Amino acid sequence: MSMDLTFLGTGSAYPSPHRGASALVLRTDGECWLFDCGEGTQTQLMRSQLRAGRITKIFISHLHGDHLFGLPGLLCTVSLNTNPEPQQSVSCVDIYGPRGLRHFLRVTLGLTGSQLLFPYAVHELEPTPDQCPEEGQLSLEMTAAGGPLHPQEQPGRTISLDPCNDCYLLLEDNKFVVKAFRLFHRISSFGFCVQERDRPGRLKTEVLKELGLKPGPQYGRLKAGEQVTLESGRVVLPSEVLEEAIPGRKVCIFGDCSSVLGAAPLQLCNGADVLVHEATLGNEHREKAVDHGHSTPEMAAEVARACCARRLVLYHFSQRYKPISLQKEGDEDNVSELKRQAEEVLQDGGVEVTLAEDFMTLAVPLRRKR
Amino acid sequence: MSMDLTFLGTGSAYPSPHRGASALVLRTDGECWLFDCGEGTQTQLMRSQLRAGRITKIFISHLHGDHLFGLPGLLCTVSLNTNPEPQQSVSCVDIYGPRGLRHFLRVTLGLTGSQLLFPYAVHELEPTPDQCPEEGQLSLEMTAAGGPLHPQEQPGRTISLDPCNDCYLLLEDNKFVVKAFRLFHRISSFGFCVQERDRPGRLKTEVLKELGLKPGPQYGRLKAGEQVTLESGRVVLPSEVLEEAIPGRKVCIFGDCSSVLGAAPLQLCNGADVLVHEATLGNEHREKAVDHGHSTPEMAAEVARACCARRLVLYHFSQRYKPISLQKEGDEDNVSELKRQAEEVLQDGGVEVTLAEDFMTLAVPLRRKR
Repeated sequence: MSMDLTFLGTGSAYPSPHRGASALVLRTDGECWLFDCGEGTQTQLMRSQLRAGRITKIFISHLHGDHLFGLPGLLCTVSLNTNPEPQQSVSCVDIYGPRGLRHFLRVTLGLTGSQLLFPYAVHELEPTPDQCPEEGQLSLEMTAAGGPLHPQEQPGRTISLDPCNDCYLLLEDNKFVVKAFRLFHRISSFGFCVQERDRPGRLKTEVLKELGLKPGPQYGRLKAGEQVTLESGRVVLPSEVLEEAIPGRKVCIFGDCSSVLGAAPLQLCNGADVLVHEATLGNEHREKAVDHGHSTPEMAAEVARACCARRLVLYHFSQRYKPISLQKEGDEDNVSELKRQAEEVLQDGGVEVTLAEDFMTLAVPLRRKR
Repeated sequence: MSMDLTFLGTGSAYPSPHRGASALVLRTDGECWLFDCGEGTQTQLMRSQLRAGRITKIFISHLHGDHLFGLPGLLCTVSLNTNPEPQQSVSCVDIYGPRGLRHFLRVTLGLTGSQLLFPYAVHELEPTPDQCPEEGQLSLEMTAAGGPLHPQEQPGRTISLDPCNDCYLLLEDNKFVVKAFRLFHRISSFGFCVQERDRPGRLKTEVLKELGLKPGPQYGRLKAGEQVTLESGRVVLPSEVLEEAIPGRKVCIFGDCSSVLGAAPLQLCNGADVLVHEATLGNEHREKAVDHGHSTPEMAAEVARACCARRLVLYHFSQRYKPISLQKEGDEDNVSELKRQAEEVLQDGGVEVTLAEDFMTLAVPLRRKR
């Protein structure tokens, strides 16, 4: 199964002509999951090779405008370009994010008379008070979604912190388990861990032939992990006829933060194939970065090191850092320097550091060995 | 006084890489008034020669997302780029638009924890039920701005229709009178008429000299329309010493509509120097256009003709119409055809028709004669 990440916006605070506001897409076999949706994400999508109509799930890390203001417009435009077959039911778009997101969408879509051609559901994560300073906390009154549901809104879940595992279970199906974890920022912020399930290895066709098994339902049962009894009475175990399992990949996407909360984030993200972390300002601005709830490349690299991640992708750069293609000699702020600062922490660790740029697509290759 | 119009977005329904969503700026002596603010307007502003920090007033014609979704982000970004002098008070940004706009901003700015470095006030226009079909009407519950004011929000006015003049008086100062008028659309929509006040003509310095008047406060009083009594007892009337008054200019900007409501819009816009009107689809799609509450070039031209406008500017084109610069031979939808369709109605009337394009700036020259 193919898997890749496309960065639609890598700038912080606001979109600019050279860096969009935060948005990235994890694509697996054509299905797209959108992480954050700053203003202009729909236009960035049109500029990319992705198709907005393929978005089935949306994850919002926190409610700051540069991660959210593009969401109502994106939903409306996807709907405008949807041609529902009369006989075909359109599947629900699941949206995950902090408490208050349901109210935000209900008001923005409601007041603008926006009718969607597909249903949507908002699954709200309940933040804990230690995720931000007191002044960043939103009251229950402010975040309560009042009034009736939007005509296309389906009831969503309210997801509380699992106190045993210190994380939020967002979804699990036969392919993926997605969990959220807590971060510290100016307002409550979350990170997401997408864990692909291990898949059975290929069938050893030579061995199957020797056993006298022909292609058919028994192949499927063995692949699904069930044992099969031959007419001779011989029991065939899956382990006899399957190659080594294909380990699932792990992609971790951090929202804005100046630190993680508790041990869960590092445990969850342990061994991540790709760890996407913000690096708003260079190390020399660490105090300012932390004051604003943000990270430096050094801080991001320390997280990646603690997680034993294989690859660290930096994004969410202050708009002062121009994309490399627009960099001019003598520019005071050089985005390449952010990469160097992260690499300094990770030297000799075999962790690759990548600077995200708008429209960059990064393959997440299959793991061959654990 | 210089006056010009800059189109930041000329597309309908949603922003695309080749046409931004609705937004245009009327600039007079450096002050900018923004009309509509679709998603991406802040980025279009950065691409233009205008400065977002110069925006002092914002007018929203109706609450559809393609005219509104850029507003919270624009306010946040203007604030981020504001450097308030400690001793200097920052003036209030006045925002005018339909009932519901106050709630929209309070929720979007509130839930995203957006703090602005300047105050703002929302002045709401009370729509009348005949401005849209019943299904487009927003209930009072939905539009009521609940909860406390946003920390930077100042109380705004609620402006009802003036039943005598069938319009809304938004503001009047010593330079301008701005009124809104009612349009018919899928949801309540408004147009805006910006009338510059006439200004006194130049002082006839030769005549003043002959009368023995020297430059000083008396010049100012005469220019302000007051009479002056000389030491000799001779009364000097302003009309004796002033050249012909400089007539004020009139710029009329229509929101989305398939028709005007009542006689007031045409009366108010009579003799407009510039009339900006939507033309979403070509004449051949009139039925579809009207079904969706929109106009064709023919319909826009009929309004311009009825108003005796001097110049008609068409905008808000369906995204099917590419900008002229991107038009390819054989393209089915040609934006130049929209111009031709409007000109057909206006032939021999001396009305200039202009197709707006993103980033086009149109001077509104001083009137020399009535």
